[in-house]
Amino acid sequence: MRTLNVALGDRAYPIHIGRGLLDRAELILPHLKTKRVAIVTNDVVGPLYLDRLRSTLEAAGVRAASVVLPDGEVHKDWPTLNRIFDMLLAERCERSTTLVALGGGVVGDMGGFAAACYQRGMPFIQIPTTLLAQVDSSVGGKTAINHPLGKNMIGAFYQPKLVLADIDTLATLPARELSAGLAEVIKYGLIRDGEFLGWLQHNLERLMARDPEALVHAIEVSCRNKAEVVAADETEQGERALLNLGHTFGHAIETGLGYGEWLHGEAVAAGTLMAAELSCRLGWLDEAGVENIAALFERAALPVRGPKLGVERYLELMAHDKKVEAGRLRLVLLRALGQGVIHGDAPQADIVAAIEARCR
Amino acid sequence: MRTLNVALGDRAYPIHIGRGLLDRAELILPHLKTKRVAIVTNDVVGPLYLDRLRSTLEAAGVRAASVVLPDGEVHKDWPTLNRIFDMLLAERCERSTTLVALGGGVVGDMGGFAAACYQRGMPFIQIPTTLLAQVDSSVGGKTAINHPLGKNMIGAFYQPKLVLADIDTLATLPARELSAGLAEVIKYGLIRDGEFLGWLQHNLERLMARDPEALVHAIEVSCRNKAEVVAADETEQGERALLNLGHTFGHAIETGLGYGEWLHGEAVAAGTLMAAELSCRLGWLDEAGVENIAALFERAALPVRGPKLGVERYLELMAHDKKVEAGRLRLVLLRALGQGVIHGDAPQADIVAAIEARCR
Repeated sequence: MRTLNVALGDRAYPIHIGRGLLDRAELILPHLKTKRVAIVTNDVVGPLYLDRLRSTLEAAGVRAASVVLPDGEVHKDWPTLNRIFDMLLAERCERSTTLVALGGGVVGDMGGFAAACYQRGMPFIQIPTTLLAQVDSSVGGKTAINHPLGKNMIGAFYQPKLVLADIDTLATLPARELSAGLAEVIKYGLIRDGEFLGWLQHNLERLMARDPEALVHAIEVSCRNKAEVVAADETEQGERALLNLGHTFGHAIETGLGYGEWLHGEAVAAGTLMAAELSCRLGWLDEAGVENIAALFERAALPVRGPKLGVERYLELMAHDKKVEAGRLRLVLLRALGQGVIHGDAPQADIVAAIEARCR
Repeated sequence: MRTLNVALGDRAYPIHIGRGLLDRAELILPHLKTKRVAIVTNDVVGPLYLDRLRSTLEAAGVRAASVVLPDGEVHKDWPTLNRIFDMLLAERCERSTTLVALGGGVVGDMGGFAAACYQRGMPFIQIPTTLLAQVDSSVGGKTAINHPLGKNMIGAFYQPKLVLADIDTLATLPARELSAGLAEVIKYGLIRDGEFLGWLQHNLERLMARDPEALVHAIEVSCRNKAEVVAADETEQGERALLNLGHTFGHAIETGLGYGEWLHGEAVAAGTLMAAELSCRLGWLDEAGVENIAALFERAALPVRGPKLGVERYLELMAHDKKVEAGRLRLVLLRALGQGVIHGDAPQADIVAAIEARCR
């Protein structure tokens, strides 16, 4: 087992990464305020791992309530969130009860937001079961639900007490979701870790084959990168925005197609290529660099082109982005491979050309 | 104009109290990040003050969007909150836009919670227009909506950048709401300010007559008390719970009757008498002390008995309280007039007797 620390002062917390962690109550117990938890999961992950987690906890004397939500980004909405509140209130959970989010990014985002809001804040623990959640969404305290007019528009910065990434849960992950997680793994290499990018160039097929040793390494390096960025800029006043490479274009894809049509990681992959095309037009990357990125995503079975929504629609959807400031779109671009940059001055013509170059 | 400061480090903010403040853009401008605001108000306060506030801001070059919500505690729910999000997104408000809550406690609670959640947090300003909001709910950062199973169950601790209490808005306040506000004013005297309690004994009729000088004094002393408590215990780990004198019983009344039947301050008044009865049974107050409190509330035209919900129903509703810890009800009681205390050991029989003594 590897352990990292997210250095956030009195809100610091550990990330444990390894095998068989769902059986280890001793990793969880020190982080509970009382011997009560409420587990939030979904109808895909629940049947696989809920009973096992519950047994681990109950054997240690912890009483566990639970709610099983429908799976999918399309359910990351208020009515589904409210099912968590209904459960918490029906079970008379207190603000000292700990909420445990067992599942992928959607479960973590909704469980975390419910924990942030229930009685104005209860403790929570992330047990991510997808690669995407293990390397990205479970770390850093971003929680949210979607609004019909924009993704993640309603949410909170709210840190977990603990993140438990059990690699064994990746054995049951569909191939498409493994790929989606790799999009975020590759992102860390692109924005701030050239050495890791080199490692990925050499080891991508091991990750696709779910080699446990390679997975632990990739998750650890990804989480270390994320933890460093979050510790420096918890509420995204500056550097943290770098983590959104490909996300402004990607959110437009997700919203434009309807939530759930493409996986988040797939949209990020296509969005990253749009950002790379734009970086090339600004003279920061050469064409070989763009192709280098595309080749890596293709080896991870990820799309390198967005859907044909029409450029106007892309621009309209991007204008809703949370990184818009004073009416101006701030984009995460690449100065070089391994060096992300936040840029608010890209000419509209270049943005349009970048989107067009990477639409099917 | 009087100005107080809520000392919360980098989240400190001023409270301005006085007349004609709605016309003074120079009090608001220093707290805006950009020259854009989104005003949240309701269909009672909006027709009275929205145009005036908008004119003040627009004359200073600030662009103001707005949404007018239906009035009343019964609308402090998700569908109404969502109307704020709809407006913010339709108007393309950014996370640097400032939300301004113009109205009473419900508008402030919902506006504040919307600001806490929109894009994971936008700045907000409280402009309370009821006595209750000016002395209590606008200060301290508690925001929330109700859930059918419990009041204020879904919310956040989220501090405003500024509180602007314009006494002139109290001229249009219905008498019943003035009284409801006085319940919270009297509360500060009871829990921690014996000197202020004495002043209230001598000046209650001046407040009922809306004497501006008396109102400014009562609001200033109330806000000072609240600001001191909040600065010492922002997220209610300890002392802040004292501010809930009468609230555990009171919330049971509000939920039991259905939101909006009794005003919050009315329920708090009846709840405070239940807490006083219980304190008497525990030997802390004598009967004269309880009658002293009842007399003060009666002079403020407030109820000193709760509705006949049945003791069982009271107990059931109180078990949902946010102050329940490890299954145990923690009540705010009175050691003496002017000295509140948080107590988790009151015998059930005494709680029952106190409720019965103060049911109609």
